[in-house]
Amino acid sequence: MTDTQTSLYTRCDANGVAYIELATPQTLNALSSQMIEALTALFVDIAADQSIRCVVLSGAGKAFCAGHNLKEMQAMREGPDAGARELTALFDACAQMMTAIRTLPQPVIAQVHGVAAAAGCQLVAACDMAVAAEGTRFAVNGVNIGLFCSTPMVALSRNLPRKQAFEMLVTGDFIDTNRALDLGLINRIAEPSKLAPVTRDLAETVAAKLGAAVRLGKGAFYDQLEMPVADAYTFTRDVMVQNMANEDTAEGITAFNEKRKPNWDIANS
Amino acid sequence: MTDTQTSLYTRCDANGVAYIELATPQTLNALSSQMIEALTALFVDIAADQSIRCVVLSGAGKAFCAGHNLKEMQAMREGPDAGARELTALFDACAQMMTAIRTLPQPVIAQVHGVAAAAGCQLVAACDMAVAAEGTRFAVNGVNIGLFCSTPMVALSRNLPRKQAFEMLVTGDFIDTNRALDLGLINRIAEPSKLAPVTRDLAETVAAKLGAAVRLGKGAFYDQLEMPVADAYTFTRDVMVQNMANEDTAEGITAFNEKRKPNWDIANS
Amino acid sequence: MTDTQTSLYTRCDANGVAYIELATPQTLNALSSQMIEALTALFVDIAADQSIRCVVLSGAGKAFCAGHNLKEMQAMREGPDAGARELTALFDACAQMMTAIRTLPQPVIAQVHGVAAAAGCQLVAACDMAVAAEGTRFAVNGVNIGLFCSTPMVALSRNLPRKQAFEMLVTGDFIDTNRALDLGLINRIAEPSKLAPVTRDLAETVAAKLGAAVRLGKGAFYDQLEMPVADAYTFTRDVMVQNMANEDTAEGITAFNEKRKPNWDIANS
Repeated sequence: MTDTQTSLYTRCDANGVAYIELATPQTLNALSSQMIEALTALFVDIAADQSIRCVVLSGAGKAFCAGHNLKEMQAMREGPDAGARELTALFDACAQMMTAIRTLPQPVIAQVHGVAAAAGCQLVAACDMAVAAEGTRFAVNGVNIGLFCSTPMVALSRNLPRKQAFEMLVTGDFIDTNRALDLGLINRIAEPSKLAPVTRDLAETVAAKLGAAVRLGKGAFYDQLEMPVADAYTFTRDVMVQNMANEDTAEGITAFNEKRKPNWDIANS
Repeated sequence: MTDTQTSLYTRCDANGVAYIELATPQTLNALSSQMIEALTALFVDIAADQSIRCVVLSGAGKAFCAGHNLKEMQAMREGPDAGARELTALFDACAQMMTAIRTLPQPVIAQVHGVAAAAGCQLVAACDMAVAAEGTRFAVNGVNIGLFCSTPMVALSRNLPRKQAFEMLVTGDFIDTNRALDLGLINRIAEPSKLAPVTRDLAETVAAKLGAAVRLGKGAFYDQLEMPVADAYTFTRDVMVQNMANEDTAEGITAFNEKRKPNWDIANS
Repeated sequence: MTDTQTSLYTRCDANGVAYIELATPQTLNALSSQMIEALTALFVDIAADQSIRCVVLSGAGKAFCAGHNLKEMQAMREGPDAGARELTALFDACAQMMTAIRTLPQPVIAQVHGVAAAAGCQLVAACDMAVAAEGTRFAVNGVNIGLFCSTPMVALSRNLPRKQAFEMLVTGDFIDTNRALDLGLINRIAEPSKLAPVTRDLAETVAAKLGAAVRLGKGAFYDQLEMPVADAYTFTRDVMVQNMANEDTAEGITAFNEKRKPNWDIANS
């Protein structure tokens, strides 16, 4: 994995955590076609790299992410079909990138500060967990420019209660970190100076678990959410049996029964 | 649209907000067949009137709405089939009225005071948003008379966490506004003397947005909620492209890029 | 119904509440095959006994339930197929027991204290309501031994917001009662010395309702949750009509209209 790209800065530490930084602060880390493509490619690489057991996604500069690149979108509208073809491809690529977070075997934590707006707020919602600096503001404010946040609401409405998601979408109002925590959009609030270490602690907690179990569990989590309960139980029953067949899991259970720490090679788990 | 009807009082102001008042305070605005029919007819009219961009639904007198008209329901039971045909028609008409709120292109805000009980609590849950006066009490208390709130729970259980909805249904207990806010049944609490202006502010905030974007977005919101995530993204991607084709949206984005207010004719949006 | 069994202690009082106590405190009431079998058999008996109108499920000793019996599970792994057949049967039986709570006509309240971990936390989530003693700790901590709580998450993720459920699953961290209440995992917190009476009050409140209405309503509650809204309304419309055909319900409505208490034989309702 290259350490720098045009729009992303990535490093992976010895604890198995990959840190991805959206690195176009001059556009408030807008989700341009280029940024979306770079993220998607990066997720393909990470999915294949079992030495990575958790991912942290942050933004450089003043804001986490301000959403789509509106100038790029307006330029697309100049095309012969008013940009329908290019815009479809853009929103498709964006949805696939968001979905890649969900299908990535490793948990992804959004480390959020400043502003998370429109598709930037969607990015927070699309991550498995989120930690935000006190003072961060969240909105799905496309309605203010006449572009309802229809793709962002797919992720938002699967995190928040219905009426509260609806209110954010039709008012375009910003909410603060306390409200975001209450509504379920984020998991933790950190003092701004401690955002990185608090997020790192959470990431390292996850990365210290048996990788195979987390990968199996994360995939099953989202899959079973879309099933009727009866099907969800049949499905997860088989996931449990599969998990039990893992030798490291056997060692984990034996260690627990013997009241000792499991003898695991976490870096290769 | 007529300004007065037997059971409803309606007015539409210059800001594009329609105010509907349930106006049978002598029955605590019970959802009689007549009231249900009048509301349904009104929603048909409103759906066709693009000058209306938001709707506020309130109740005259002491209570927002105390639910079905029990005397009417008992009278139906006197029929040859113990009222099965008439009762089926009644619950059907009621469910269709509740569904008409969901399918109405314009957002509907419940302005709630006093009591919202049984189908009256369902009416709050069925609206897109709700503002309640401090002191309002909410219950799905049909169980107390041996009639479980089965239709109300369709709306309630899609607003509240599962165990909390269940508790309300089997205990029939009233909850207060703070609890209703915590559980997601309402969006805001207002001092009783400020209920109307607080609700009006929210309605006018919504009515000041581009009508076409809000109409498109509201419909998509509920449709995508019932889809698996992958389908929801394919669907909303197309909604975004459709939204981008709107000339007013183009103006909105251009105005944003040029750091000026969009030049919109909101009354005709 | 026998009053004592190997792993369960059961009594049913004059108020129509059945109290089931998991009674293997030496294993922190682990969900062994034997315990699962005994609970399932008991639910079959209770389902057929209309004199029972509410169920309370508690645990003897220091903890409500610490989850599966890990020693039993490890022993199963010794089999020729690494225990796949036996483990499949175990997880299947456990899921069927959890599902039996959902399909039981009577509401089931978990009375929780000490610890509810892994499948023990699932048991709390699987009950219709839960009351917990202050100081109770909840976790889905299988990940710590390399066994992701995949079956527990079916119940957990249908009670909690998505990101918060995910966090519990991948960190394995315990949450306290305040957090459990905020997240929707429990309905009420009681002082430890008042856990039993607070739970009993809730159970007796439910048991004092018309049994037929509660039975009809509980089943419909979970069934309609898995339907699209339109289908849910058609379904519950018919449930309402069926409920209206009950003579006790007719008496309940008449009593309400006449401002008197209904003349019900609750013990036979």
